[in-house]
Order: sequence, then C-alpha cells, then structure tokens
Amino acid sequence: MDPNNATSMHSHCVDITMEVHQVVPPPYKSTLHKFKARLKETFFPDDPLRQFQGQSLNRKLILGAQYVFPILQWGPNYTLKLFKSDLVSGLTIASLAIPQGISYAKLANLPPIVGLYSSFVPPLVYAVLGSSRDLAVGPVSIASLVMGSMLRQEVSPTLDPILFLQLAFTSTFFAGLFQASLGILRLGFIIDFLSKAILIGFMAGAAIIVSLQQLKSLLGITHFTNQMGLVPVMTGAPLVSVIISTLLVFAIKGQKHGISVIGKLQEGINPPSWNMLRFHGTYLGLVMKTGLITGILSLTEGIAVGRTFAALRNYKVDGNKEMIAIGFMNVIGSSTSCYVTTGAFSRSAVNNNAGAKTAVSNIVMSVTVMVTLLFVMPLFQYTPNVVLGAIIVTAVIGLIDIPAALQIWRIDKFDFIVMLVAFFGVIFISVQLGLAIAVGLSTFKILLQITRPKIVMLGKIPGTDIYRNLDQYKEAERIPGFLILSIEAPINFANITYLNERTLRWIEEEEDNIKEHSNLRFIILEMSAVSAIDTSGISLFRELKSTLEKKGVELVLVNPLAEVIEKLKKADKDNDFIRADNLFLTVGEAVASLSSAMKSQSSTMTEGAQTIVAHY
Amino acid sequence: MDPNNATSMHSHCVDITMEVHQVVPPPYKSTLHKFKARLKETFFPDDPLRQFQGQSLNRKLILGAQYVFPILQWGPNYTLKLFKSDLVSGLTIASLAIPQGISYAKLANLPPIVGLYSSFVPPLVYAVLGSSRDLAVGPVSIASLVMGSMLRQEVSPTLDPILFLQLAFTSTFFAGLFQASLGILRLGFIIDFLSKAILIGFMAGAAIIVSLQQLKSLLGITHFTNQMGLVPVMTGAPLVSVIISTLLVFAIKGQKHGISVIGKLQEGINPPSWNMLRFHGTYLGLVMKTGLITGILSLTEGIAVGRTFAALRNYKVDGNKEMIAIGFMNVIGSSTSCYVTTGAFSRSAVNNNAGAKTAVSNIVMSVTVMVTLLFVMPLFQYTPNVVLGAIIVTAVIGLIDIPAALQIWRIDKFDFIVMLVAFFGVIFISVQLGLAIAVGLSTFKILLQITRPKIVMLGKIPGTDIYRNLDQYKEAERIPGFLILSIEAPINFANITYLNERTLRWIEEEEDNIKEHSNLRFIILEMSAVSAIDTSGISLFRELKSTLEKKGVELVLVNPLAEVIEKLKKADKDNDFIRADNLFLTVGEAVASLSSAMKSQSSTMTEGAQTIVAHY
Repeated sequence: MDPNNATSMHSHCVDITMEVHQVVPPPYKSTLHKFKARLKETFFPDDPLRQFQGQSLNRKLILGAQYVFPILQWGPNYTLKLFKSDLVSGLTIASLAIPQGISYAKLANLPPIVGLYSSFVPPLVYAVLGSSRDLAVGPVSIASLVMGSMLRQEVSPTLDPILFLQLAFTSTFFAGLFQASLGILRLGFIIDFLSKAILIGFMAGAAIIVSLQQLKSLLGITHFTNQMGLVPVMTGAPLVSVIISTLLVFAIKGQKHGISVIGKLQEGINPPSWNMLRFHGTYLGLVMKTGLITGILSLTEGIAVGRTFAALRNYKVDGNKEMIAIGFMNVIGSSTSCYVTTGAFSRSAVNNNAGAKTAVSNIVMSVTVMVTLLFVMPLFQYTPNVVLGAIIVTAVIGLIDIPAALQIWRIDKFDFIVMLVAFFGVIFISVQLGLAIAVGLSTFKILLQITRPKIVMLGKIPGTDIYRNLDQYKEAERIPGFLILSIEAPINFANITYLNERTLRWIEEEEDNIKEHSNLRFIILEMSAVSAIDTSGISLFRELKSTLEKKGVELVLVNPLAEVIEKLKKADKDNDFIRADNLFLTVGEAVASLSSAMKSQSSTMTEGAQTIVAHY
Repeated sequence: MDPNNATSMHSHCVDITMEVHQVVPPPYKSTLHKFKARLKETFFPDDPLRQFQGQSLNRKLILGAQYVFPILQWGPNYTLKLFKSDLVSGLTIASLAIPQGISYAKLANLPPIVGLYSSFVPPLVYAVLGSSRDLAVGPVSIASLVMGSMLRQEVSPTLDPILFLQLAFTSTFFAGLFQASLGILRLGFIIDFLSKAILIGFMAGAAIIVSLQQLKSLLGITHFTNQMGLVPVMTGAPLVSVIISTLLVFAIKGQKHGISVIGKLQEGINPPSWNMLRFHGTYLGLVMKTGLITGILSLTEGIAVGRTFAALRNYKVDGNKEMIAIGFMNVIGSSTSCYVTTGAFSRSAVNNNAGAKTAVSNIVMSVTVMVTLLFVMPLFQYTPNVVLGAIIVTAVIGLIDIPAALQIWRIDKFDFIVMLVAFFGVIFISVQLGLAIAVGLSTFKILLQITRPKIVMLGKIPGTDIYRNLDQYKEAERIPGFLILSIEAPINFANITYLNERTLRWIEEEEDNIKEHSNLRFIILEMSAVSAIDTSGISLFRELKSTLEKKGVELVLVNPLAEVIEKLKKADKDNDFIRADNLFLTVGEAVASLSSAMKSQSSTMTEGAQTIVAHY
C-alpha cells in the first residue's frame, strides 16, 4: 500500500482480502443435453416456439395457423381507419411501381411488361405470408442488374428473347427455392456473411456498371431534340416524367424523329409461365448459379429492409419466416410471368412515409397495377426509352453511398479494403467472383483473428485489485515476479502453435529486460475471454506447463470459463497440471495469494536458496 | 452488507468503494503503425530478427550466415564426445532406414532402390540447413502411401513404370517447392489447420487401406511354406528380419518354391534425375496436386516431430526455417532420384533414444546407406516381399492410435466427429477429399463459434464484487433491476443479427419472469471477452441502444478493450450513445454506481413515477 498515492482511497481492502474463491466447473449436463442446447442456439436463437408453451391444443392450432399465415393474425382486427392509411400508401407506391417495373425489367434485359407483372402477383403472396408491415414488394435494381448481366454472358436477349425469358423465369424459380430452403432449414445466418461493407462496395460497383450501360444508350440517340432538356428535371418524379414524356412524344410524334420508345405492349394480366421453366439441358448450371446469386442478393435487401422498419416501429420480424415468404413469392412468381422480386428499399421507405399500416398497402398497389395492365397498357407504347434510362440511372446512382464508405474508412481499415475489393471486383471481374472474393476476404479476417489471437499484458490499476491492459491503461503497474497475460480468443488447433510461441517470447523478453534470470516466478493466464477450447487447446496447457517448469516458472490460470474448466478437468484425471492452488477466480486473488505464499516461504527458507520452488 | 453471510469477511470493502474508474481508449497510434504491428504478429510472431538487434555489422553477418545454415552455429563447437554419441545413434537409425526405405518405396509403388536413395541425399541436406538436433530424415509411410495412391489413379506403376517414376520425382519437386514457399512467405500456420484430431483419423484410415493392400498380396502367395511362421516374430526388428529371411530364401532357394522376392537391384549411389522432371503435358495438374498433398502431410509430420523433441530437450526450432530446410531437401532430392522425405517420427524417436546429439547422426546414417548402396545391394535381391509387407503392416498399424481417439471422445465430441470424418473420408472417398472435408468441417466449427457466440448471464458472488456466470457458479446472485450479460466473442458482421436477437430474447424472458414490466432498468454488457469489433459491430450498439430506450432500459458497457473503445469513440463523434456515465471498468463498479444513483434519484422523485428515466 502506497500512502503517497492519492487515488487509492480504499487500497487496504485489497491487502486484507486474503479470502480466495474457488473456480468450479459447471453442473454436469449430458452430451445429448449439451448437443440439444447447442442446436437450439445455432438454429433457433429466437426461440419461435416459446409462444406455444403452456397453451391449450385449440389455441396451439390457432397460433400455428397464425404463425404460417401472419394475415390471420392482423386480418381479424383490421379496421376502416387502417384501410384509409393503407389505401393512400398503396396508391403512392403503385405510382412508383409502374415506372420502376418497366425500367428494372429493361435493366434485366426483359420485356418491360414483365416488370409490371412482377408488381402484381408477388405483393399478393407476400401480403398473406409476410410478417413485415412496411415492406413494399417488387423488382429491385441490384437483382435485376445481376440477373440481366449473368444470363447475358451465355444467351443474347436480342437474338434469342424467348430463351432468355425462359432462363429468367427458371432463375427466379431457383432463387425462390433457395430462399425458402434457407428459411425452412433455418440457415438464414448465411446472408449475414454479406456484410454491410461488402454491400456498399458491391452496390456502388453495380451502379457504375449500369450507369455506363445506360449512358451508352443515351449517347446512342441520333436526333438530339429539345425534349431532352426536360429529362434531368423529370427524373425526380418517375410517374410524372413517364406520363409527360409519353404525352409529349405522342403529341409531337417523336418516334418518327428518331426518339426510341418502348413500342407495343401486350394487354391483360400475367399469363401463366410454368411451361417456360427449363429444368434440363445446357443452361441448368447457369440458371442455378443465377438463381443462387440473385436469390441471396434480393434476400439480403428484403431482410435488411424488413428489419430496419421493424426496429423503427418497434415490432419484430422473424428472419427465417421472411425468407420463406420471399421464397414462396418467387416460386409462385416464376409460374406467373414474374421475375425475381423482394422487399425494395426505396419503395418501402415511400410506403412507410405515406403511412402504411399493414400489408394491405401491398394489395392496393397490386390491384392498381392490375388495373393498369388491363386498361392503361397501350398508352405506354409512346414512353421514350431515354426517360426509362434516366430513371434507372437516378435509381442506381442513389446506391452509391459515399458517407457510409467514409464512415467505414474512419472506423475499420480492413472493412474498407473489403469494400474496395467488392467494388472493383464487380466492375473488373464479375458479379459472382467479386462477391465471392469479398466474402472470402472477410471470412479470412475472422479466421485470422482466431489464428493470431491477441495476447495482452495486464497490470494492476493502483488502489484497486483491477488488472487491465498495460498498453491501454498507462497508470497500471506491473507486479514484480509475475507475468500476467490475457488471452483474447478461443483456444484451438488453429492457434496453439502461435500461443505457445508467443507466450515463450513474452517470457524471453521478460528475462532480457530484468536481467536477473530467476526473478520471474509466475505466469498468470487470465482466461475470461477464452470462450471455448478443443483437444488441441488442452494439450497446449500441458506442454506450456512442462516448458515453464524447466524454467522454474509456475503456470497459473485465472477464471477459466465453464466449457474450459470442464474440459481441463476431464483431460486431467490425475490432477497433475491443474491443481486447486494454481487456479483462481480473479487476477487480484491470484496475485495476493501467491505473493503472501511466496513471502512466507522465502522467510522460512535458508539464505541464498536459488529457486523459490515450483511447487508448494 | 449481509451480516449473516459468514464468507463475506470483507464485504464492506465493496460497499464503501464508490470510487469509479474510467474506461480509456489506448494511446493514439497511426494506421501505419498498427498495420505494421499486426503484420508482425501475423507473420513474425517469433520475432526472428530480435537476436540481430544492437549487434555490430560483422556480428550481424555471422549471425545471418548461422541463421541460414545452422550447421555454422553448432559445427565449430563439435567435439569427439558428441561424435561418439552421434555415431551410435546414426548407425542405429541406418539399421532402420534400410528396411524402411525398401518397404516404403514399395508402398509408394516405386522401385525399392529409390527408398534407399531417399535415405542418402536428403539427410545430408538437412544436416546443413535444419535446426533440429533429433530429427532423423527419410521417407515416411503416410507420404509414401498418399503419393502411391494418388499417382496410381491416373498412371499404372506396373504398365508404365518409367512415367510413374517421372511423376513421383516431379511431385517431390512440387512438394519441396510448396514447403519452401510456405516457409519463405512465413505462411507456416497453414499446417496448423490439420488438427491433431484430423491427423489421428486420417492416419488410422490410411493404415487400414495399406494393411488391406498388403493383406491382399500376402494372401496372394501360392506356396505356403514353413518359413511363414517366422514372419510375426521377425517384424519386431526390421533389419534382422530382412537379413535372416534373405539368408533363408538364399539358402533354400525359396524363390523357386514360389516365394516372391525383390529381384535384382542396381548397384551404386543415386543417379541424377533432373532430366526426369516433367513440367508440361497432361499430368501437370496431377503432380502439382500430389505434390501439394504429400508436401503438406510430410511437412506436418516433420514439423510436429521437430517441435516435440525440441520441447522435450528444451531448445527451440523455428517452424518457418524448418519448412525451408525440408523444402530444399525435397527439391534437391527430386533431382537425385529421391522421392518425398521428411523428419520421420519413429526414426527420430529411435535416434533420440540412441543418444543423438546433433544432425551428425543424419550424416552417419547417410554414409552407412551409401556404403550399402555401393557394396551390399546385390544381396538384397533374395529378400522376400512378404517380409517387406509385414514391415509395412507393422509400421502402419502403429499409426492407429486408439487411446488418443478415446481421449478426444472424452474431451470434445465435435473433434471426435472431425476425426471420424477424416477416417471414413480417406477410406471411402479419397485422400485429398477426406482431408479437405475434415479441414472444412473444423474450420466451419470455428466460424460457427463466431456466428453463434456465447452470451452468459452474470451474477454476483456473495461477499465480493466478483460477477460470474450464473450457470457455472450456483451461489452467484442476480441483482434486481439489472440484466448483466457477458458476450464471449469478437463482434462482427457474422454475428450482429444473432447478438441483437439473442439479447432481446433475454430481455423478453426477463420481462416474462418478473411480470412487473418496468422492473428492468439496466442492461450491462460485460465486454472483456470482445477482442475485436468491425463497422457492423459498431452499428449493433447503436441499434440496441435505440431499441432498449423504447423499452425504458438503459444500455451500459463494461470494460470494452482497447480496439473496441477506440472504434466506439471514433464512430460516436457526438457522444450520443457512449457517454462516460454508461461506461465502467468493472461490473461491480457499474452496479454500485448505478444502484446508488437510482436510489438517490427515486427518493427525490414524486411517488408513483413510472419510469426511472433513461438518462440522468
């Protein structure tokens, strides 16, 4: 105790507390029990069956039906007041859905009408199965772009439009199948591997590709008339620009002056398309790959949108259930002339802003699109392509999120690199490879954190018995004779060699520093951050202990967690390397107890004894 | 303070310690500095250049030469006494090397003489470059088996023996190239991914394949003469059995009674073989794959053997330097009619037992093998193949380590499954796929530990201010109004969804349990085990905080480590979600400080106030 240290008001507490608390293994649980608990945490972390507990059979059936069809949950309580809100928001998103549908279908190299079909059937399916109140369903730019560019690698949409359409529907089928499977198998966490950094880089890269493509077609216009000046002003309000430009072209007969227009569109609602699905032949690999990539990308957007608005309005969406809903939506869509759809971010934001209360706004949008398909379609034939191009460019330019990129640069340089890899990978290699490399790189980083875990040296914060990182807390002090290290990762086959080498290097550096060779008595390993261990990890301790014994240094473990102490005990039937007297609950207790034992021992020993002994 | 609690001798310390210690970020370091430190920990954890620090240029040159050629380090101090030990041990391992060389070459479907060549050149190379004193170099059973079976998948060793030999030498070249590259690029940690569990399963599977192959050839013997009875007795001492059986066959002219023998062997030392290396043509993929697999397997054995004996005799081997030595040994070997070699476990154990002191024992063995090659070779033509088969079976049966398998079962069930996968994968699929699946599975487990990190609820150990896992420490007690959770993994893109859901589930369960809805005031997240965080992880806290605020619960962080607090501060310029008053150094201080603030506040508030407020 240092009387000169003003901050150590209560340091006498530390010195008089000689009581030592035991480290205990957790109570016995059978392997089966542990396996079941692990399984539950892995696949059912949200515990979806909890609401069924302690309910009558009847109630369980009702809850079950409501679980599968959320519409049964909110439907019976639906009121006219809610409908008024949903009607307004539904009409609002419909005004967005029509021009977006036409533009995004064009982005996917599909006939514009398919974009409208895709805003009719899928929203109805989602209204029955989905659990988000804010999600507005329809085609989205990224999935459209990716599908278009992946399919075009093997089939030309201009030379063989029917085959291209067949492949698009089949890809949509596989996307839906994959999405629903992820949900049913409760493997939804796979989409977490597309981190925010990757998505930001990827979307910016995709936006640039699309913009360049559209720019090419914009520049390809031969007669540059005065209507063009309107475009930048119009793009802010897609439906208005479509209507005005269509009327203008119609009035001035612009198509005869070289303005490229959509051309004749088929009237009527979605024709069936299950006869267009191709499950055999040369393109099966291509459609499965395209389905997988567009499926995972659209799922990521849909789930993120659902979660964002649920958090905003304080309700819960079940990720795996959402995946099943989006998956079924696409499987059914693929049989009714729709291509891949999901919860669209921009559209859902508008929906939420316009006051949507339930999925009924999706139904309103769907009905509006249906009316359009039945009666208004022929009018769109005069819509100039350049306006659609402008809508696309505006949409995708919005995907470039510079402030988010800067924020990532500030916080985490490695995430920034991953972002750049996704960005340049998508631009210069391909969508699938760019994504794969970025995911691989971020997974590699996680593995590297395990392979090269941090080990930090702890010191005592004066006037307490708190031990913290010496680098971080400059006032913390070393305790002579002790080397206190904290290992900050699970210990397993991938890092035992490193941990062994690194620990020995600490000791050597220590010996170099203090020069008196035998000054170091104890190595205390603080294990609070070692959440798991495997058989290799156990062998590390055995090896480390025997190496240290040869140097006359004793190994002490502090606060091994449940799994770790349990496995150490199992591996050590003879109690030869983890005895109670080198196992402590806190670093403070370990230091206090070992120091006093050391003192009492050295006072009873003869003068000049060389070693303070490794066991006592 | 509870006066009835006999164990709480000093609990007054806790209650009177109201001093609160600050969490501080680590001192500023530039990105470049952090990057360099990370790079060093990743690739140079053993800090090989430390010995050069503060030395004169002359001394640095000497140290550098000694670093590249360890023989320069121990050579000048070599004494006659050491040589006597090395001579005995060298002769002993030569007696093992000759029969093993012949047998293992047979296992690799190569001419027996190649096995002897491989015990002549590589040991000499290793003696110059290697840093282990106990490693005895030569062909080993696993690498021989794998090379033989991989090459045989595409080329028949009986129909096209010359091509087969060319491919074996070329594979050896690639194995060496790969090994040396791992060492030079300091990527040695890659071999750590072949965990002990995988190796035990793999070796047992390999042993069974080989035994079955040899059994087939044993059963293929047509004339079963009385010499056969000797075989089981002989196998214990390979050289003796080879000599006795050879003499017997010679005496009784056994080869005429249908006993299959080696046949005529070429006399003389290794012919050059660089003209046999094939770097083009159809088999390039095969030899590269074979080189990679045999290279990594033999490297794993060699490094493990080197480390084991170094730990036993208390000196250090440098893993990356050993890889370079073994790599060069194989590259040079491939040009001098040797196939893949490494530090053999059985041979090194014998070497150590026989008293080897330095790598000179390898030189003695090499010279003995040379003498054999030059003068004794013709005598081996009468060695019966059945004896070689028996030697092989004995060697590989020794690879099946049942006690180690049982130990793995006891300690870690998942490791046991990985072991079984390696075992059955090698037997029923193939060497490379079996290994790849097992490595994939154990890597997946590590990733799963990150994706589904443990979160445990902490309670106070009575009479202390220590907070520990409530499941593990049954005496620990909950503090009313607080939910104290410890997160036991780095927080990143792969687990934020889970952590968010899981934390909210704890809160809901909590609310269900205590029924009084607004009883929960604080969630304390103990962050001591969160060693790293990325940009996604930062967003988790922002989101969690806003969700909790809606529930009237305040988020408190305890002991965020250097990297975590640094990034939190960077992301939070406006100080809106990490204020000093919800950041504590220990759980004890957090609970004490928040409880007393809560008490003083509720006494000044009007009766019946519903919320204790989220900010104060």
